Amino acid sequence: MKLNDHVYRPIWYDTNDQTVKIIDQRALPHSLIVEPLRSLDDTIRAIIHMYVRGAPLIGVTAAYGVYLILSRKVGDIKYLEQECERLKAARPTAVNLAWAVDTMLETILKEPDPKKHLDLALIKAGEIAEAEVDRCYQIGFHGAKLIEAISKTKKNKPVNILTHCNAGWLACVEYGTATAPVYVAHDKGIEVHVWVDETRPLNQGARLTAWELGKHGVSHSVIPDNTGGHLMQHGMVDMVIVGTDRTTYTGDVANKIGTYLKALAAKDNDVPFYVALPSSTFDWHIRDGIGEIPIEERDPDEVRLVQGLYDNQTISVLVPPSDSPCVNYAFDVTPARLITGLITEKGVCKASEDAILAMFPEIKKMMEM
Amino acid sequence: MKLNDHVYRPIWYDTNDQTVKIIDQRALPHSLIVEPLRSLDDTIRAIIHMYVRGAPLIGVTAAYGVYLILSRKVGDIKYLEQECERLKAARPTAVNLAWAVDTMLETILKEPDPKKHLDLALIKAGEIAEAEVDRCYQIGFHGAKLIEAISKTKKNKPVNILTHCNAGWLACVEYGTATAPVYVAHDKGIEVHVWVDETRPLNQGARLTAWELGKHGVSHSVIPDNTGGHLMQHGMVDMVIVGTDRTTYTGDVANKIGTYLKALAAKDNDVPFYVALPSSTFDWHIRDGIGEIPIEERDPDEVRLVQGLYDNQTISVLVPPSDSPCVNYAFDVTPARLITGLITEKGVCKASEDAILAMFPEIKKMMEM
Repeated sequence: MKLNDHVYRPIWYDTNDQTVKIIDQRALPHSLIVEPLRSLDDTIRAIIHMYVRGAPLIGVTAAYGVYLILSRKVGDIKYLEQECERLKAARPTAVNLAWAVDTMLETILKEPDPKKHLDLALIKAGEIAEAEVDRCYQIGFHGAKLIEAISKTKKNKPVNILTHCNAGWLACVEYGTATAPVYVAHDKGIEVHVWVDETRPLNQGARLTAWELGKHGVSHSVIPDNTGGHLMQHGMVDMVIVGTDRTTYTGDVANKIGTYLKALAAKDNDVPFYVALPSSTFDWHIRDGIGEIPIEERDPDEVRLVQGLYDNQTISVLVPPSDSPCVNYAFDVTPARLITGLITEKGVCKASEDAILAMFPEIKKMMEM
Repeated sequence: MKLNDHVYRPIWYDTNDQTVKIIDQRALPHSLIVEPLRSLDDTIRAIIHMYVRGAPLIGVTAAYGVYLILSRKVGDIKYLEQECERLKAARPTAVNLAWAVDTMLETILKEPDPKKHLDLALIKAGEIAEAEVDRCYQIGFHGAKLIEAISKTKKNKPVNILTHCNAGWLACVEYGTATAPVYVAHDKGIEVHVWVDETRPLNQGARLTAWELGKHGVSHSVIPDNTGGHLMQHGMVDMVIVGTDRTTYTGDVANKIGTYLKALAAKDNDVPFYVALPSSTFDWHIRDGIGEIPIEERDPDEVRLVQGLYDNQTISVLVPPSDSPCVNYAFDVTPARLITGLITEKGVCKASEDAILAMFPEIKKMMEM
């Protein structure tokens, strides 16, 4: 995306100094800091401490991580596989992490000549990134049609879209997942307004989504996570679009903690609730999202300390009493019954096993084997 | 309540220097600051800017506000009534504000001798405060029985109670409303653990409820407002108890924004959802909570800036981009259908017109007249 006359992605391979570069998203929106990734340890640190976050971007970063393993040592398959396991363990919930590592490994191990592995890894990581860009654009294309249909009923008033967390280009590579339909609709001249859940504890909505939308000129308002239900009760939300970190093939959706509460409110007020995802975010092995998707518990200090700008510096302040325990679950699972539809690169489908497998017949075939 | 060997209430009349004193709750939990109220303007400022907050405490503060009007001028009934209207307009949602002012006025205007008005006002304000203390204790008594019943099914494990915002002694005068059952149960030796919603935007849960519970030795954990649904899906919440700023006689409950989302999650997971309130919080005139209770919209800076401790000072940091609009609705309405029961000073009843009016037959009689 274009920022201040410069095109940025949240991750790229810099051919000038032959390093992988990322935007350190922890510093946004008040500073734009670019960091190099020079090793697997850099990569794992960036994923764990959320320099990069968002399921598709975690996948792409992991793909470059496999390249960085090989940049240290080629020809030792056991070492490669061990390091890949360490990479896959960086965060538990987003399925794209394991998917990207496995895809990289499969490609590399098909090539018998180890001398070609490093170049091959760099090419494949780039391909995975470009494939995500393409999938996100297609999600935008399909999702914008839903927005356009609502727009026709609104008589020159904007379509009000609520989103939670950041499933924007910062979470992907370009366009985003949940934001892709918004950007495509906006660029087509459809009037939209986005309610941005601030998304505690790390405020990815207030810090990242608001920043992205603002830079692109999309009308938006930041709201506390508590506000969406009230807005829906009063007809102020036309649709909800969120991203996901892992979606079962039965349609259960793991996403940033609090998504489930918005889905309940949407159901209670007949507001359509959509989840936007590339096929890389489906988990083709899990039936029961609430019972089986592992939910990451993160450092309580992410709840305790809130980061923001003070006196031109980004600092963190302590909110609760210093001796009060805090608990920090990163995700929750929204059951399929609360979801109006899934927006994928192949089109929009119901959040049900039948509809999902009908959209991905090649997977269905594999599952039947 | 006892704090560091000193008994505090959030408001009191200090006989030594003949002023009304309050705890400035904006500075908690990191500083305990006591402020005098010397005039109606002081009182209105304290209510608007939330030095004091919580429906019962707003009522008691307003009662002392009427005393402060008279301390400036007695014998001018028109002036008194005009100033009372100004006081009642300070905040729109909590019904206790108007109720307390009207109760004060009624008492004062019954006394024909204006020379007696000032003393009478001070006595009546004190009576209103003591009546709230008594009601809150009764709420605690009745609510603790509900906790005790759950405790018997838990086999030596704590009863997990989720609460939203601060409906503690800081919001009342003593005991609190939602916290009263917790304090009474804890003092009886029943093991409880409280999930404290941090309650954005002003973090009354993280700042005030966590502080209160910690000072009283009650086990608790602060969680982002997004977390409750996930906890309920996994059997980690045994009951929800919240307060209310205004409850219709049909059982619809206005409370801090986000309460409705927790009520939806409780319903979806068969978790009992209770609202604790003194009878002064009922609105006997409104049938339809969602349609008719006015919802205050407050300064967007309360969303934009987050207050906490940094370098031993309480400061505020800017979270979203400085040019992103923010929106700040203070309350939402939970419809009666989502509420398991109301805990009042008279006992526990269903959130329905029939059950509420059966509990308050004197009101029912007046409504039928």
